[in-house]
Amino acid sequence: MPQTLARHEDLLALSEEAQKLLFTEARSANTFTDEPVTDEQLRAIFELTKWAPTAANTQPLRVLYVAKGEARDRLVQHMLGNNAAKTAAAPAVAVLAADLGFHEHVPHVFPIRPELKDSFEADPERREAHARFNATLQAGYFLLGVRAAGLAAGPMAGYDGDGVDGEFFPDGRWKAILVVNIGHPGENAWFPRLPRLEYDQVVRHV
Amino acid sequence: MPQTLARHEDLLALSEEAQKLLFTEARSANTFTDEPVTDEQLRAIFELTKWAPTAANTQPLRVLYVAKGEARDRLVQHMLGNNAAKTAAAPAVAVLAADLGFHEHVPHVFPIRPELKDSFEADPERREAHARFNATLQAGYFLLGVRAAGLAAGPMAGYDGDGVDGEFFPDGRWKAILVVNIGHPGENAWFPRLPRLEYDQVVRHV
Repeated sequence: MPQTLARHEDLLALSEEAQKLLFTEARSANTFTDEPVTDEQLRAIFELTKWAPTAANTQPLRVLYVAKGEARDRLVQHMLGNNAAKTAAAPAVAVLAADLGFHEHVPHVFPIRPELKDSFEADPERREAHARFNATLQAGYFLLGVRAAGLAAGPMAGYDGDGVDGEFFPDGRWKAILVVNIGHPGENAWFPRLPRLEYDQVVRHV
Repeated sequence: MPQTLARHEDLLALSEEAQKLLFTEARSANTFTDEPVTDEQLRAIFELTKWAPTAANTQPLRVLYVAKGEARDRLVQHMLGNNAAKTAAAPAVAVLAADLGFHEHVPHVFPIRPELKDSFEADPERREAHARFNATLQAGYFLLGVRAAGLAAGPMAGYDGDGVDGEFFPDGRWKAILVVNIGHPGENAWFPRLPRLEYDQVVRHV
């Protein structure tokens, strides 16, 4: 008798509707409609994703939303190639950043070991590595959070990092790690979907 | 008349059940039951999360699952403090790693610009930064994927990175970025939930 294999989708606790919204049918958008993104939606993304884990609960991700007009123009000049026009047109744009001063909050967010504040203070290199790693984990949560809000995200690594940092974070405490366009997908928002690596190329068992 | 404010939960397209499963009621687990995690569940996590975005679709995250017995013992010796006992006991353990040789797949996964393979080949420093950043984004997706499978994740940064790399990735191509215990939450699996930063501490508008 032929064996009946379970579909991957059926092995998950997450509903198939949610799988589609966040992962299997979600796409990075290259164009957006004029429909605005509200401040309440941006806040709802934060209130959802803030619960996802970081090491020692340090939560070093920071988000700068850059409104259209003078502020957006200042950002666009640091975007590379095609990203400039995309960022100029997007209804909302977030600069995701790692806060190198995250450790000031340790006594509040990790009261189990408040002394971690001082050990991070004493070791700026370890502190920056911790900030960048955990803020990047949180950037992953953020991109899925945008989708959870029913919006499309257009993450972009193609920008002048020193330029963005100098423009918006001149005191050196926040460091940009990713720029994300946000909105409702517009005409021709997607390129054809690109191939994913196979399971055996990614996962090993030992 | 008092203003009726929408609940953050109601502003999202993601169902409240899925919000709870992935974010608002999910917790990092410190203990697990003996109930096994199946290879089919681990595969389903991959098949879900592989669709989330990476820069130039490069997908540099790799996953090594370390079974109980001799292999697990080899990993446990590199875990720090309390993490050793947790990793010894977990039904499944994943070592998440960044593949510094991810660029060999560029002509397949990003056929729009196959020449990126050569430019990454020529610049190992930029290649490693790209691998680590994007694998870390994917680690964020992975942790939510474990929850999507109805399982609890226990991510741990407290391990000897050089020790783990030397033990399991002696050719230097994969670099461990996070160790994740996986299973069904056991007795006293959770510490009290720790506070999150406030919106105004994390998000700015300009």
